[in-house]
Amino acid sequence: MDTLNIPYVVDTFFLLFASVLIILMVPGFAMLEAGLVRTKNVVAVLTGNVMLYAITSFIFLLWGFNVMFGGNGFFLSGVVADGYSLYAYFFFQMAFVSKTVSIMSGGVSERIRIVPFMIFAVLMSGFIYPIVGNTIWGGGFLKEVHDLAGSTVIHSVGGWALLAGILVLGARRGRYGKEGQVRAIPASNIPLVTLGGMLLWIGWFGFNGGSAFHIATKDAADLVGLIIVNTNTAGLAGAISAAFIVYFQYKKLDITMILNGALGGLVAITAGADVVGLWEPIIIGAIGGALVIFAIPVFDKLQIDDPVGALSVHLVNGIWGTLAVALFADFSLLTQLKGIILTGLFTFPLSYVLFVIIKKVVGLRSDEEHEYVGLDLEECGLEGYPEFVKSKV
Amino acid sequence: MDTLNIPYVVDTFFLLFASVLIILMVPGFAMLEAGLVRTKNVVAVLTGNVMLYAITSFIFLLWGFNVMFGGNGFFLSGVVADGYSLYAYFFFQMAFVSKTVSIMSGGVSERIRIVPFMIFAVLMSGFIYPIVGNTIWGGGFLKEVHDLAGSTVIHSVGGWALLAGILVLGARRGRYGKEGQVRAIPASNIPLVTLGGMLLWIGWFGFNGGSAFHIATKDAADLVGLIIVNTNTAGLAGAISAAFIVYFQYKKLDITMILNGALGGLVAITAGADVVGLWEPIIIGAIGGALVIFAIPVFDKLQIDDPVGALSVHLVNGIWGTLAVALFADFSLLTQLKGIILTGLFTFPLSYVLFVIIKKVVGLRSDEEHEYVGLDLEECGLEGYPEFVKSKV
Amino acid sequence: MDTLNIPYVVDTFFLLFASVLIILMVPGFAMLEAGLVRTKNVVAVLTGNVMLYAITSFIFLLWGFNVMFGGNGFFLSGVVADGYSLYAYFFFQMAFVSKTVSIMSGGVSERIRIVPFMIFAVLMSGFIYPIVGNTIWGGGFLKEVHDLAGSTVIHSVGGWALLAGILVLGARRGRYGKEGQVRAIPASNIPLVTLGGMLLWIGWFGFNGGSAFHIATKDAADLVGLIIVNTNTAGLAGAISAAFIVYFQYKKLDITMILNGALGGLVAITAGADVVGLWEPIIIGAIGGALVIFAIPVFDKLQIDDPVGALSVHLVNGIWGTLAVALFADFSLLTQLKGIILTGLFTFPLSYVLFVIIKKVVGLRSDEEHEYVGLDLEECGLEGYPEFVKSKV
Repeated sequence: MDTLNIPYVVDTFFLLFASVLIILMVPGFAMLEAGLVRTKNVVAVLTGNVMLYAITSFIFLLWGFNVMFGGNGFFLSGVVADGYSLYAYFFFQMAFVSKTVSIMSGGVSERIRIVPFMIFAVLMSGFIYPIVGNTIWGGGFLKEVHDLAGSTVIHSVGGWALLAGILVLGARRGRYGKEGQVRAIPASNIPLVTLGGMLLWIGWFGFNGGSAFHIATKDAADLVGLIIVNTNTAGLAGAISAAFIVYFQYKKLDITMILNGALGGLVAITAGADVVGLWEPIIIGAIGGALVIFAIPVFDKLQIDDPVGALSVHLVNGIWGTLAVALFADFSLLTQLKGIILTGLFTFPLSYVLFVIIKKVVGLRSDEEHEYVGLDLEECGLEGYPEFVKSKV
Repeated sequence: MDTLNIPYVVDTFFLLFASVLIILMVPGFAMLEAGLVRTKNVVAVLTGNVMLYAITSFIFLLWGFNVMFGGNGFFLSGVVADGYSLYAYFFFQMAFVSKTVSIMSGGVSERIRIVPFMIFAVLMSGFIYPIVGNTIWGGGFLKEVHDLAGSTVIHSVGGWALLAGILVLGARRGRYGKEGQVRAIPASNIPLVTLGGMLLWIGWFGFNGGSAFHIATKDAADLVGLIIVNTNTAGLAGAISAAFIVYFQYKKLDITMILNGALGGLVAITAGADVVGLWEPIIIGAIGGALVIFAIPVFDKLQIDDPVGALSVHLVNGIWGTLAVALFADFSLLTQLKGIILTGLFTFPLSYVLFVIIKKVVGLRSDEEHEYVGLDLEECGLEGYPEFVKSKV
Repeated sequence: MDTLNIPYVVDTFFLLFASVLIILMVPGFAMLEAGLVRTKNVVAVLTGNVMLYAITSFIFLLWGFNVMFGGNGFFLSGVVADGYSLYAYFFFQMAFVSKTVSIMSGGVSERIRIVPFMIFAVLMSGFIYPIVGNTIWGGGFLKEVHDLAGSTVIHSVGGWALLAGILVLGARRGRYGKEGQVRAIPASNIPLVTLGGMLLWIGWFGFNGGSAFHIATKDAADLVGLIIVNTNTAGLAGAISAAFIVYFQYKKLDITMILNGALGGLVAITAGADVVGLWEPIIIGAIGGALVIFAIPVFDKLQIDDPVGALSVHLVNGIWGTLAVALFADFSLLTQLKGIILTGLFTFPLSYVLFVIIKKVVGLRSDEEHEYVGLDLEECGLEGYPEFVKSKV
């Protein structure tokens, strides 16, 4: 028996376990977004989510992982894993990468065509994300920024790219009236939204917990336990704070807002779940949930049309979570700010330019007629629920 | 390398794994119940389930865990974990607490308002459940009762409180005719019911398996294996026995009854999965499934209106499972009975009084008009499936 | 502390973890198939899936496991586990068995009656599958065939039995016109299809990863990591290749084809994920995805009516995957072919005869009227979505 390798084994097993939880977020995002859009665009959103996972994982296997973690060439070569299987390390990191684009997928939904979005996904997973990731997690010049599981590296990056995408795409036709009125477009399937939200919440335990990378010493096991508890606490604080706010505003418990509040809290704790105690995540998460509720109408006021509230969840809270590390633990506010700002300055303009180029070269947006009847038939040749009679939307 | 801590590490990892499975039961209950109610009440049920998880976990973090396991003050302080991370121990126990109220949520659905139910959830997770739990699992005066994962502590407690809630609330309008006829109200979404039922079944492996608390010795690993196999066996025996009974009664394989039968079997094995061999769970589970099928019409005869059959699943089988420990393994029937009866005598009247007080102070039940059009718009401001044309129900 | 047992413990834990992932495939198949059939047959498909899991697991507990792995008598007696808990070994193997019939369940859907299908499930899990399994995995005369997790043992066996079932059953009424035209019957619920497909994908990590049986040495941990990465790679390659083909054929990204392509890639890597490097799964999976797309119209040309494409996914790719082991790793093509052919020669005629006998004795197929109105009301007494108004199909 090679006892000496037990920590290697246990850490490898732990990373594989965490990876599987993260991959549960693929159906999580798919269900959340499919439930939030209208029935006529459900298939396009689902197809996007599945293809995003396939394509970004593929690119990351080919070269993205190597770019991000100092390898050479392709297929993991030259990357060194720190006391666990390189395959498990790759799998864990690969599970992250589709999230940067899944984050965007709901926000650009109901008008983006799938193929151009997939082209962006290739660029994101092959270049933008590995480059940002390298500077913070790969030992690059922002390695002092404390970002446990990616409030900045994952969520802000996805959020900035989404903002660029929405600006290039424009709003859905009919979303904003001539005098700037916002036309409400209700979510089409609330059970799917709930299922998706809860799968994301559960996946987050792997996301943040796994980012400790080690569990095989007493201290490491305690740290993983703390991270997972704190992750959950911030999620529930986000849900409760969002629930209070919407209840006092409208006397209604809007579950889409409550779940977005929970997700906001989860994004917010993602940078610092390992460096705060048990009560701080209550504050961090509650502010995260509140930020979602307050940010959504602001984006609408600016006519930045985000059908699922992804900017408020991921961009706003990615920034808040990265700052919170400095406010609630002993880290430099300046360093955290530097991470936030430089990441934005790199990701947003680059994404904007890439979206403009994609738009010029292959087109980005569905035409008016297909947007009106829904993208599903044009893009996928299928309807989401062909047998159910639909009311006019 | 600190080899000596490997069991600590492995047990911590194991508890975290089990906890994640249990938290899968949150979407499990949500989907099951959302599928069993009518479309007009789907959002209220989903919102309740998500908020229940958030609120009860929060209370348990604040003080419930401390009350239950002999801590002092708040936030885990003073609780001692037995050879694994305190955070993992808390997380595992926290994963249990929302179940006591999730159990109730389907049974009071289609007429309870969300906010008063949440008030009850606070009282349940902050007082009733930790007190009962302390007497049996926390070293209190019922510590001789053998109840592995809570046939009594979780399922009966939730069941008694549900019975109290239903009696205070009353039946759904139109459910019982003037001559006591029962009007059938069909489940609205069978795929959701199936998904939810299977997620609960899978979550149960963590529920019961994790209740061994240790896996890091050969004997402990065998015990966990046995518990998980037995849990599954009782579930399938419950499903098969329910299927046989409904098939011989009606020549129809009613999946809602089959899944409730499986859940009945799972509840029944929850007290004793660790102390019986491989064949006993077949009997225990089959009787559990049969009890569900026979109990459902009895409650209806008594005009106790339980839209999802939760009393038959959780209360009846919570009692049966606790008794079965004495019948199939070497435990005192008297002690088991004492646990069952004292738990009921504590939980039922207290819950009844609390529901009456909540009803007086803030109201409990939706008014007639909102019950007729469905709770979703009034309580949540949303419809579950706004685009699908509905037939009259 | 008994250090010496840590590998026993970790391998046991690992097998339990893998088993739970595999059991997630039960709702996975259920959702996939329920989404692919018409709404009028949804409940029958769901009921079949749940009952299949219950019945086949039960038979396997009673005697199937003993037949397959050289035990004597019943209930695991006489089977020896290799360095992990016998219970975990049983649970893992039990998690496999329902898959052989779940594979079939979509293919025979929309016209098979549930009870006769359950009779076949008993015969499959009690005899056909344990016998084939014994010859390859139980040390029998085909033990030289390399089939890691069952491209042949699970997928071809299920596929051959399905082919027999479809031939005995015949096509759905109205599926093929007088001149052999194929009438398209669209999937009824694409979110369920997507959810089910992704749950299957995720479950596959347990399926293939767990088939290493050990993780508790450095080499074993690396092997498990490699298997899981390769499994994922073949799945995404199958999805991408299917997407390319359907896009170039029809300019539409048909998600049902893309997911079937992913599943085809996953089946194809199931035999050899442990014996190839990181790039081979791209080829194996991409061919797997392409085979699905090209095989589906072939079966339709032959008027072999398979509503969900299960023959193309499981039978065609089960064969392809078993061959691929010899093409991409150092194994005998002849031996692999022998495994494929003998398995087919055993399973197909035997299943055919059994289906014919079941048809004679208890009947197999729904009558014309019930097929027209849907099986749900006749077989289960329920509708899948009773409140949604349906368009004529």
